[in-house]
Amino acid sequence: MKYPETLNQVIDCFKHLPGIGEKTAERLALALLEYDDNMLEIFSSSVASLKQKVKQCEICHSFSENNICDICLDKNREQNTLCVVETPKDVISIERIGTYKGKYHVLDGLISPVNGKNPDDLNIKTLLDRIKNEQIKEIILVLTPSIEGETTALYITKKIDDKNIIISKIAHGVPIGANMDYIDTLTLEMALENRTVISRS
Amino acid sequence: MKYPETLNQVIDCFKHLPGIGEKTAERLALALLEYDDNMLEIFSSSVASLKQKVKQCEICHSFSENNICDICLDKNREQNTLCVVETPKDVISIERIGTYKGKYHVLDGLISPVNGKNPDDLNIKTLLDRIKNEQIKEIILVLTPSIEGETTALYITKKIDDKNIIISKIAHGVPIGANMDYIDTLTLEMALENRTVISRS
Repeated sequence: MKYPETLNQVIDCFKHLPGIGEKTAERLALALLEYDDNMLEIFSSSVASLKQKVKQCEICHSFSENNICDICLDKNREQNTLCVVETPKDVISIERIGTYKGKYHVLDGLISPVNGKNPDDLNIKTLLDRIKNEQIKEIILVLTPSIEGETTALYITKKIDDKNIIISKIAHGVPIGANMDYIDTLTLEMALENRTVISRS
Repeated sequence: MKYPETLNQVIDCFKHLPGIGEKTAERLALALLEYDDNMLEIFSSSVASLKQKVKQCEICHSFSENNICDICLDKNREQNTLCVVETPKDVISIERIGTYKGKYHVLDGLISPVNGKNPDDLNIKTLLDRIKNEQIKEIILVLTPSIEGETTALYITKKIDDKNIIISKIAHGVPIGANMDYIDTLTLEMALENRTVISRS
């Protein structure tokens, strides 16, 4: 005995999503049954059109419904600063802070030969082209602090090969609000190494 | 700055599901972008047809794609035993055990005057009709152990008013595999009260 076919299908679809197990998939599918028709229609149609509608910006490779995204089109942003990130999601995360006023470049991953990700698989060539064509003066690397992240940062730094461009990477350290008991050794080491002076006699 | 409209819509839809917060909704919607077109099409179309396709069985009120569900149509099941449950999900849970061979009756909730759920809002009338028409001899109540569950059990027991029908409810006690340190007092009290004799000298 199982659920009706259509319900099973919805459960199956949910199960394929990351972090969703059998029980959760069941709970979500059953919750959908309680939705009104209008909500279900919106859910279904937006899922259906997701891949057609959501494209990657031709310049920065972030998400966009048009060929070129709003940030790339925005003339009020600093035109000479590029924030290099791994995924379009990172762009949203940084935009939420609200303080960064430059533009972005999405790599679409990190260099990871083990996982078959070589520099050519990332948007590094378009990054180098932009640096030249858009007279970029500053590059901020916002990459995961991992071997892959460091490799990618190193590769990009070497490729840029222009002493006039400032390349920086975000600070790694103890997160705000964290319980010191649970900070791992490597993070603590980084935090110590990158300490900032708060008073000097 | 936000995600493209369609992506936001999908995130919003996920956010309305129980237990899904902002961050998880975002993660799920982004995961959908990685699905191939075929999977997205199945997801979208099964969600769209969910409410049309998944009906309630006219006899037992469990889920069914037809007017009458497979269990009600099954002539090999014990015809005189009814397991009374709260939701169609409970039917699936009990079917998974595989030992119960009777039929079901789904109440669609419990009596709860505080939440505006009166006996008339539940499938109690059809239950009483079935008991008469189908010559039911045994009723097994599988209801949440709560005030509402007890009230509903009491109400149904009074309504049946036929000394020849055996009415039972499931055992409440310490779950298998549970850590005794975490069992609440009420459950432990129930477990003690309903203890079973394992040897008698």
